[in-house]
Amino acid sequence: YLLAQTTPSPAADTSARQAKEAPSLLFKKKPDALENIHMNFLLRSSLEIPDGDRQSSMRMNEARFEVLGTIAPDLDFRIRYRLNRAQTPRDLDNSPGSLDHASVNYKFGKDKKWSVNVGKQAAYVGNWEFETNPTYEYQYSDFVNYQTNLFLMGIRFGYQVNKNHGFFLQLHNTYNNSFHTTYANAGYAADGLKGSKTPMGVYASWLGKMFDQKLHTFWSYNVSQYASGKTNHAVALGNKLTLKKLKGYLDLQWAAMPVDYVNIASPSINKYQQQLNPGFVPGFARDVNYKGAVLRLDYEFIPGWFLTTKGIFESSSQTKDNSTIGKNFRENIGILAGLEYKPIASQHMKLFGYYYNNQVKYRNVIADANAHQRSSLFAVGVLYFVNAF
Amino acid sequence: YLLAQTTPSPAADTSARQAKEAPSLLFKKKPDALENIHMNFLLRSSLEIPDGDRQSSMRMNEARFEVLGTIAPDLDFRIRYRLNRAQTPRDLDNSPGSLDHASVNYKFGKDKKWSVNVGKQAAYVGNWEFETNPTYEYQYSDFVNYQTNLFLMGIRFGYQVNKNHGFFLQLHNTYNNSFHTTYANAGYAADGLKGSKTPMGVYASWLGKMFDQKLHTFWSYNVSQYASGKTNHAVALGNKLTLKKLKGYLDLQWAAMPVDYVNIASPSINKYQQQLNPGFVPGFARDVNYKGAVLRLDYEFIPGWFLTTKGIFESSSQTKDNSTIGKNFRENIGILAGLEYKPIASQHMKLFGYYYNNQVKYRNVIADANAHQRSSLFAVGVLYFVNAF
Amino acid sequence: YLLAQTTPSPAADTSARQAKEAPSLLFKKKPDALENIHMNFLLRSSLEIPDGDRQSSMRMNEARFEVLGTIAPDLDFRIRYRLNRAQTPRDLDNSPGSLDHASVNYKFGKDKKWSVNVGKQAAYVGNWEFETNPTYEYQYSDFVNYQTNLFLMGIRFGYQVNKNHGFFLQLHNTYNNSFHTTYANAGYAADGLKGSKTPMGVYASWLGKMFDQKLHTFWSYNVSQYASGKTNHAVALGNKLTLKKLKGYLDLQWAAMPVDYVNIASPSINKYQQQLNPGFVPGFARDVNYKGAVLRLDYEFIPGWFLTTKGIFESSSQTKDNSTIGKNFRENIGILAGLEYKPIASQHMKLFGYYYNNQVKYRNVIADANAHQRSSLFAVGVLYFVNAF
Repeated sequence: YLLAQTTPSPAADTSARQAKEAPSLLFKKKPDALENIHMNFLLRSSLEIPDGDRQSSMRMNEARFEVLGTIAPDLDFRIRYRLNRAQTPRDLDNSPGSLDHASVNYKFGKDKKWSVNVGKQAAYVGNWEFETNPTYEYQYSDFVNYQTNLFLMGIRFGYQVNKNHGFFLQLHNTYNNSFHTTYANAGYAADGLKGSKTPMGVYASWLGKMFDQKLHTFWSYNVSQYASGKTNHAVALGNKLTLKKLKGYLDLQWAAMPVDYVNIASPSINKYQQQLNPGFVPGFARDVNYKGAVLRLDYEFIPGWFLTTKGIFESSSQTKDNSTIGKNFRENIGILAGLEYKPIASQHMKLFGYYYNNQVKYRNVIADANAHQRSSLFAVGVLYFVNAF
Repeated sequence: YLLAQTTPSPAADTSARQAKEAPSLLFKKKPDALENIHMNFLLRSSLEIPDGDRQSSMRMNEARFEVLGTIAPDLDFRIRYRLNRAQTPRDLDNSPGSLDHASVNYKFGKDKKWSVNVGKQAAYVGNWEFETNPTYEYQYSDFVNYQTNLFLMGIRFGYQVNKNHGFFLQLHNTYNNSFHTTYANAGYAADGLKGSKTPMGVYASWLGKMFDQKLHTFWSYNVSQYASGKTNHAVALGNKLTLKKLKGYLDLQWAAMPVDYVNIASPSINKYQQQLNPGFVPGFARDVNYKGAVLRLDYEFIPGWFLTTKGIFESSSQTKDNSTIGKNFRENIGILAGLEYKPIASQHMKLFGYYYNNQVKYRNVIADANAHQRSSLFAVGVLYFVNAF
Repeated sequence: YLLAQTTPSPAADTSARQAKEAPSLLFKKKPDALENIHMNFLLRSSLEIPDGDRQSSMRMNEARFEVLGTIAPDLDFRIRYRLNRAQTPRDLDNSPGSLDHASVNYKFGKDKKWSVNVGKQAAYVGNWEFETNPTYEYQYSDFVNYQTNLFLMGIRFGYQVNKNHGFFLQLHNTYNNSFHTTYANAGYAADGLKGSKTPMGVYASWLGKMFDQKLHTFWSYNVSQYASGKTNHAVALGNKLTLKKLKGYLDLQWAAMPVDYVNIASPSINKYQQQLNPGFVPGFARDVNYKGAVLRLDYEFIPGWFLTTKGIFESSSQTKDNSTIGKNFRENIGILAGLEYKPIASQHMKLFGYYYNNQVKYRNVIADANAHQRSSLFAVGVLYFVNAF
């Protein structure tokens, strides 16, 4: 995590740079043929002790395999897949949920300022929480877990103005599954909607470095379609601070969803509607707005020892046509505090322990049908970003 | 694709040779320990725009991972698997559909003319369309998609007479699933048949090079059994031309299936029978014959720029006992035309765009119950055969 | 197999050592960067001809991929996964059945005598049959196939007293699935039981080498919980002999299961109870004891030629409260005899053929409802432990 925060580059470039820049006490000369090829494993396991009746267990939190590299000048490839996810392909993009990256990146033009990245790739959303290597992120917001379609088929064009500022346009599939399958999986009725002929969208993103590279911005605007005639809009403003002993980020985001395909808020609205009218047919709710803020701060108080904290606040609203459901009818609040120890300076391995508390609260009429939920978790474990070569 | 066409060797040997023979502007000395080990990724992604109501999307067309090499003299291994296919094993061969190759090849005898290849491997069918590395083949005939069981458990014996001619015998499982599972998956009744005690077959194949290696033949005869007492026969004649700027193949094939387990023609016959008699229980049709021809031609009209074309014609017949269903009752016709650009001479990467039109036509009594189908597709994308090392 | 028997170290360390110690006629200097990284493939395929009505087929017996190594001094990692198993994660440990190992091992303390191994790992059970690399083991006892949860999330602490004796404590999840899922998968009723809040256990193990390293002991005691208030106990005593031409092991084991979640004996008891009372609801039987012995002996009668034999005897009992079901009500008996040929001294590749006979016999009242089962199998094939680098 530390490492991911010290590198200002986005997900698609992070790990290669990690492998290259990582200060190693064990530096070994690589043969020419492998100089630009890297194989990585992303591992995290922990003993999780939840409160209440839920069973304690040792869980595999992360197990991913990555190969990436540069073969010809200016031509990179990246493959990353999860070892604990089914490899069955989704029906719109023919790619499985287990495959994070399978892409080719090509730099061109004067001074190689232009680039194009094609294939399965990370959404270029302005969000440092997601941008951080998943090895280092213990608990995610709903924004990363559900709201954003994170790994998708796309084409990303980039223009690097100078070493501090780059601009990107990413054309992407809105979701991985077809319209019909999305409804079938949720068990919802289509409610008069039909799939867009072109269920795609665009991210316009800016990556900037300021104040002697101490502040890294990653801001994006997204417009996309999934149902015919229904257009989603979203803004995400990621801001990362990299000081000597203190590192962290503040991510802010807003989204307007004419149809709530992300399905975070819909279950609570369906429950409320069914209470009013037992014959109500559940579906994706209309005109839901999301907003959220995530703050993470890590402080190295003794060399090799880190205090890590994270706060999550997210809310859902439905205000169109003076809906009785109203503002902030669902809130998701998370608080994490933990301690990390990095015993070997050259290796991205940490022992960790943390406490996480999560609450989901309902307001207005929605609270009548949905009770507050509260859960907490204590975890101890090991994470290791293994750079095999 | 270009590359696959310049190498006369069959699937099991192609990629190693590719890696070795590929002219590289970036040639790097490999360390001894890796000299004969290769890791490849096969990637192709494209934006597909179909006609009619079907949704446009960016699709992952290929994502395969391959490791192959020679460890001891005369002893090779090859592993290749797909990253977008479920890893659940099939029940007759205990191997998943995601695993194309997991085999060991051993050369022996005087001048190492004899070889034996054991494990999951490609069917040694005389067909250059299938033999071509899948990275480079955009749309397949029904023969490759459904008719042939392409990746199967087998033992292949070879005898290389001289550098131009080799003969092979491949003993193989007829299908990957057990008799019972095949019926259960199709939802068909067994109709008095039972599984063969030995559901296996043999390919007898000849690979030849003629006319100064400009013509490559790959011809095969197959006999196999799946249902007890029902024997399939098939002939496939693959012919490949490799000139300086023009490359291509013409594949011809015939097959006689006493029971239509490939299930290309059966759905249309079932539909017809159910129209005659609503109580008809659907099943695999009897005594279906298939024949087909596939022609692909690629022309490099400017260095790095290719015109690619492909034509597919396949038909199904049922003529035994003067069946009213008759000759060519189902025809599958495909036409593809495209443009390819290879920007980096040393890398097997291409940008491409193509148009594909497909028709399925019915004749005779079968046409009464089955309407013609017509679809077309426009695609643009990138393919890259990545030879990581 | 030979090799696995000559290495006294347990599963988690075996393959790295194999790669290092294996005498190679083809030794090639590895570059520094890869000196301590290894990639292996475990392959075995065979033509299996069973007796009776069962269909013959060529089957993929093993296909596993492994990467392991040492990056920093005293810090090892190991990843191994199966290419013919679904990658869907289980719900208690979030790890799939396809992932055997995904662990990190760290040595510490004076003379590096202490070690801790965290992540998905092999159960540290005193059993050489399981400890042997699966490439080399043709048929397994019920103990390895069903009774033991072999690959599990855990933390293993070790203390190596001297080069001959080590002691280990492994804290582990009892099973991979949650309590609820285990019942749902078996289709059984919970019968008043509920899941333990902490469904975990501990292995206490001793690995010893004696008589000039000719005898290797691997003994373990296990205590674990899965249902609340029901504690399992198990003892396993593995004993391995390594002489010049004769190698083998004798594994002995006992287990007391208050609830038979391993489900080897329960089906026969359910069948008996349903015969007595058609309304009986099937479930996991109570108070089942297992015991077993497995003997394998391999004799190299000519250099490169091996005679291999294996005998399995296992029984189930229910004696608590003078149960009428009684002692040894189910017996599993297996006999294997085979011939192996290793053509290349430097490579762990063998051609093999074997005959296997298996019987399951029932006694006492259980025999009234369950008939004896007898099956046999003849197989010929190839195995190859490929050390790619």
